[in-house]
Amino acid sequence: MTKSLRIAIAGLGTVGCGVIEILQKKAELVTARAGCQFEITAVSSRDQSRDRPVDVSSYDWVNDPVEMAKRDDVDVVLEMIGGESGIAKKVIETALDHKKHVITANKALMAHHGFELADRADENGVQLLYEAAVGGGIPVIKTLRESFGGNKVKAVYGILNGTCNYILTEMRETGRDFEDVLADAQKAGYAEADPAFDIDGVDAAHKLCLIGALAFGIKPEFEKLKTKGIRNITASDITYAQEMGYRIKLLGITRSDESKIYQSVEPCLVQEYSTMGAVEGVFNTVLVDADSIDIGQSIGLGAGAGPTASSVVSDLFDLARGNSMPVFGIPSKDLKEAEYGDFGDWEARFYLHLGVRDRKGVLADVAGILRDHKVSVETMVQHGHDPENPVSIIMTLHKVRQSLINEACGEIKKLDSVLGAPTLLRIEEI
Amino acid sequence: MTKSLRIAIAGLGTVGCGVIEILQKKAELVTARAGCQFEITAVSSRDQSRDRPVDVSSYDWVNDPVEMAKRDDVDVVLEMIGGESGIAKKVIETALDHKKHVITANKALMAHHGFELADRADENGVQLLYEAAVGGGIPVIKTLRESFGGNKVKAVYGILNGTCNYILTEMRETGRDFEDVLADAQKAGYAEADPAFDIDGVDAAHKLCLIGALAFGIKPEFEKLKTKGIRNITASDITYAQEMGYRIKLLGITRSDESKIYQSVEPCLVQEYSTMGAVEGVFNTVLVDADSIDIGQSIGLGAGAGPTASSVVSDLFDLARGNSMPVFGIPSKDLKEAEYGDFGDWEARFYLHLGVRDRKGVLADVAGILRDHKVSVETMVQHGHDPENPVSIIMTLHKVRQSLINEACGEIKKLDSVLGAPTLLRIEEI
Repeated sequence: MTKSLRIAIAGLGTVGCGVIEILQKKAELVTARAGCQFEITAVSSRDQSRDRPVDVSSYDWVNDPVEMAKRDDVDVVLEMIGGESGIAKKVIETALDHKKHVITANKALMAHHGFELADRADENGVQLLYEAAVGGGIPVIKTLRESFGGNKVKAVYGILNGTCNYILTEMRETGRDFEDVLADAQKAGYAEADPAFDIDGVDAAHKLCLIGALAFGIKPEFEKLKTKGIRNITASDITYAQEMGYRIKLLGITRSDESKIYQSVEPCLVQEYSTMGAVEGVFNTVLVDADSIDIGQSIGLGAGAGPTASSVVSDLFDLARGNSMPVFGIPSKDLKEAEYGDFGDWEARFYLHLGVRDRKGVLADVAGILRDHKVSVETMVQHGHDPENPVSIIMTLHKVRQSLINEACGEIKKLDSVLGAPTLLRIEEI
Repeated sequence: MTKSLRIAIAGLGTVGCGVIEILQKKAELVTARAGCQFEITAVSSRDQSRDRPVDVSSYDWVNDPVEMAKRDDVDVVLEMIGGESGIAKKVIETALDHKKHVITANKALMAHHGFELADRADENGVQLLYEAAVGGGIPVIKTLRESFGGNKVKAVYGILNGTCNYILTEMRETGRDFEDVLADAQKAGYAEADPAFDIDGVDAAHKLCLIGALAFGIKPEFEKLKTKGIRNITASDITYAQEMGYRIKLLGITRSDESKIYQSVEPCLVQEYSTMGAVEGVFNTVLVDADSIDIGQSIGLGAGAGPTASSVVSDLFDLARGNSMPVFGIPSKDLKEAEYGDFGDWEARFYLHLGVRDRKGVLADVAGILRDHKVSVETMVQHGHDPENPVSIIMTLHKVRQSLINEACGEIKKLDSVLGAPTLLRIEEI
């Protein structure tokens, strides 16, 4: 006799309906592979009358998802509502307290409250699964938690936001400026009406926070993360980078040395001929640098009904097979409080873009300031030679601590002939 | 109290010692993450006196690995001996029959005997795990079997042999010829003294066979697989391909339409600016094209002590956590006998390289034959213009069935002015 797993789904948006579609349309395949019958008992959403791509009429409709999470005829609750707290959190807490497994795709909630929820899952002896929360269809959680478990992780690098990667790719391919491409992306549905969450790096930071917890066995602490988005990347930066063989990507990076954790979300240069540089458009990627495997990288779609629902279904498979893992790879009581270091303490090469008036002595002034701060120039190119108009000076800098360049940039900015703030981007050799 | 798992290791070569190194050096990390103490009870290898990178003196030494596989104080046997049958197979069979889980890195054995061994594992209610057998440190098995379980797979593409990828990368970067690079690779230890197994595509085919079984729920049948290696790829092919924006990779491909499975290992052209083209040197990759995720790709090292041992340890984690999965994703009794189609029935674009005498009328003859076989030329370049010496004609062909070009090439070969066999390579748009 085939086992069965009884499911309640809270939230019938893109992901919720995507899961139902897989379970309905591929029932035979899914049952064979999971060794289990999946049975949707109840569903809940704000508006019962809304048109949906799947037929939900055969499931019990429940208006209050919190009440639904208490039902005796439910083994697992799928929280597909979203939002970093509020009703989504209440649903998860209620389900866990009623000894039901929970699957969520909610990265914001897990990044902000993952630790207390992990504690709650452990206390109640149930599973809290969230493969869909990081990297959509990419098996980031399973790979870090299970496949690379025998590794001491040195660093994880990720392109974690499809909207940003789409915008940066479009800018490179068309030469258009940020605002222009963003407006088009919004029209095409690749960016939200309020794009801040994506383009300022908040969404990527939520995911990076969870990756860091899994990689290093630390409590996820979103508020400790530094984030810089892609608003200030210009079409010319992308062009100049490309001329030197680089592409600009919004990278989430989490690193560890023997004592501290260093985390950052910011635009960086990566080599165009690399497996990181080749990840374009709405694709996401996660690259793990660890002692035994050396390098392990996964690429896939980070959003969308299909990929996200596929990851939710893989969590359902784990429950069906009785597979179990602590939320962040080790029991929540063993998660360490990380000590965070300043990312500027890591040495790196840098890309520096200065807008200057084409006057005699500018270069000497800039070079002098860099020398005084022990920053050594690797290459330098000047774009434009027009005494009437601003020209661009593009440099790459030898390996140096960011704190030293930051000081230098502060002084360079004050020079009369330097226009606006210098653009400083790290070059990541991955 | 922490659980414990008692391990016997048969074979103390690179992988066996790699596993011991992880369990010894990272005992604390591994125990915390697996929620289990790993205890090596016994080891076995041909030569006890050999120098090894790890200390095995505290484990019981057993001369006969088959006897070791019967021991009562062992929960799991690691078969790290190698070889497609013989002693390795006997060890696995004995362990399964004695209700012990088995972990192996032996792709040849799994490709040839995987189905009967899966049956045996299912009958005995134990696990047969082989993550290390495909793609070294890349979690190929886990991803296909667990993460992408809700997907209907359309095709899987892999760069599955590090030696071939290293040779092709070196040829491209240095412009040197195959034999030359191979000799160096052998000196550097990247290729075996007898390289046939790697460069003729046999090793890649073993892995592809297992991937196909997992992707499509079919019995692995190695003997059904067609294989073409990289011996005939010349430095000039690589250069010409690059001029058109392509790199040559030895690809393993397994595809399915509604009724048949199509499998092949052969050198193909892939776009240089792609996540497939960017996988260089000894790196391997597996790209899954499936209905829900769209594209999911993993990249990592395909061989070496660290990556391979890391995958063996991930299998140990699964056993420690009580996770269980059928060997090929569904119970072995449900695996289907595949009907195999001819890969030449799939339409594709092609790269065609002809060596010809630079005489009047050659092109007209070639073009006429292609036209008569309904093969349409997309681009054409002639390299060299010397009536005394052979010149190269490079074409790309519009989408067409390979069977049609094969016929055309048969006739072209007979032309007086055509020297040697044409080189025909598929262009894969991934």
